[in-house]
Amino acid sequence: MESNDTPGAFRRTAILGLGLMGASLGLALRAAGLAAAVVGYDADPTAAERALARGAVDAIAATAGAVVVGADLVVLAAPVLALRALLGAIAPHLAPGAIVTDLGSTKVQVVAWAEELLPEPANFLGGHPMVGSERSGIEAAEPALYRGGLWCLTPTPRTTQATLARLTALLERLAARPLVLDAARHDAAAAAVSHLPLLAATALALVASSRPEWDSAQVLAAGGFRDTTRVASGDPRMARDICLTNAQPMLDCLDSYLAMLHALRDRLSARDAGIEDAFVMAKRARDAWLANN
Amino acid sequence: MESNDTPGAFRRTAILGLGLMGASLGLALRAAGLAAAVVGYDADPTAAERALARGAVDAIAATAGAVVVGADLVVLAAPVLALRALLGAIAPHLAPGAIVTDLGSTKVQVVAWAEELLPEPANFLGGHPMVGSERSGIEAAEPALYRGGLWCLTPTPRTTQATLARLTALLERLAARPLVLDAARHDAAAAAVSHLPLLAATALALVASSRPEWDSAQVLAAGGFRDTTRVASGDPRMARDICLTNAQPMLDCLDSYLAMLHALRDRLSARDAGIEDAFVMAKRARDAWLANN
Repeated sequence: MESNDTPGAFRRTAILGLGLMGASLGLALRAAGLAAAVVGYDADPTAAERALARGAVDAIAATAGAVVVGADLVVLAAPVLALRALLGAIAPHLAPGAIVTDLGSTKVQVVAWAEELLPEPANFLGGHPMVGSERSGIEAAEPALYRGGLWCLTPTPRTTQATLARLTALLERLAARPLVLDAARHDAAAAAVSHLPLLAATALALVASSRPEWDSAQVLAAGGFRDTTRVASGDPRMARDICLTNAQPMLDCLDSYLAMLHALRDRLSARDAGIEDAFVMAKRARDAWLANN
Repeated sequence: MESNDTPGAFRRTAILGLGLMGASLGLALRAAGLAAAVVGYDADPTAAERALARGAVDAIAATAGAVVVGADLVVLAAPVLALRALLGAIAPHLAPGAIVTDLGSTKVQVVAWAEELLPEPANFLGGHPMVGSERSGIEAAEPALYRGGLWCLTPTPRTTQATLARLTALLERLAARPLVLDAARHDAAAAAVSHLPLLAATALALVASSRPEWDSAQVLAAGGFRDTTRVASGDPRMARDICLTNAQPMLDCLDSYLAMLHALRDRLSARDAGIEDAFVMAKRARDAWLANN
């Protein structure tokens, strides 16, 4: 395998999964000249064809095994529950020294599968770009998706420093902001600020649209409803996979959320003006977060 | 009192409460030439001075009673719980035939106070513009705030057609979209799509920022967290007043929300892949709403 001396650049990058995340990465790598070739695979051949037509990849392959042959960087960009089978499918075909990463929403489960299934787990490094939107699919892909966004990397004690350094350099070339943290810490944090909001928004959309007054309510609904429920328009399969691979941290957060809502309910039921304290504290917490991040 | 023959125009408009909503209305009325004079009052004299300096009003008065003298349109733009005292304060000073409206977030309570306290309840018409933002205060005011936005009007059987027609014409001149509906219907609908999201966002901001993993989580938090919690950065006093004047409809919605979250919790706890159904239905409901509204 030839080496490539430009920091952050790879000779041949394989992207498995050509939806919003994978196709946007292909567009970004090609636009920045960070891979001599970008090859793609999607379980849905039509999606792969559309990604090729869109210019997100230079070529497509018919199987997960075939697409990784000769690649020095392999990126798994499928929903989390599809990753176990993909890891198993690519394992026999990986070039020696190939770096493997993923873009999955949860990390503990993915890292465990990689350590179980890959021939060189030291070259695996879990990743999670904190970008994306409620839109999904190749049509929503854009080369600037990762620009300025945080991109978590979750090395294990087995991950080599060389692997971490090469991927970090790649992310910096993409103008993303790498953040190294432990997989379990990532999953707990994501449960609090990404997965709990997903459950909250989903329940809001379901409850509001089921109310007897929805006929009027849907006309009144404005920016507050739109924003509070936005993530409920995301990909249902991705949401399901998050639940099935990060259940315990999500349950911990959901139980805190239910307790908080019950406390608000008590004050509302008592017509307690002290409920203002909750609004004051929430505003303070969110405004401080906005100011610092 | 002189008449003004331009539909939607008034001779002298008094605005009581010069925060985001009241000051934006003043800016809009003055920019459109819809009032020969706009006079303002705020319980906080500093806020009134800033509104005057910003050009939101032509003049300010020191008391609620003084500002309505000679006005043919009186707009109450204070938080809901302040409206009872304001209605009582202006009642002895209103010109005969003066139209009185408000911009309060809830309507049943305000309409009841108006019917109790005003000398001519037939000239009162409750209103609620479905605009605004998490920002508050004169600094956030802008003349285009109401442009294109829905503006609920909640006449009672006592409200005259002339009052309804004059206010509707004014809103149309402001490029707002008037929607006439019953006050109780308004409050139930607002509970579902505005007040429940406020509680949900508030609890989310409080829970996430109290988690042990908040140090990492606040760095990971991205657009999903920002949007889902946006309304938690709103004015706490306005939120409190909404709770205290619309408690029962909010309790009804909150109980449905708690039941939905408990159902999601059951599926999450059972690692039930069928939780995807909830995400599919929520996406369908929200996407349909977006497409239709």
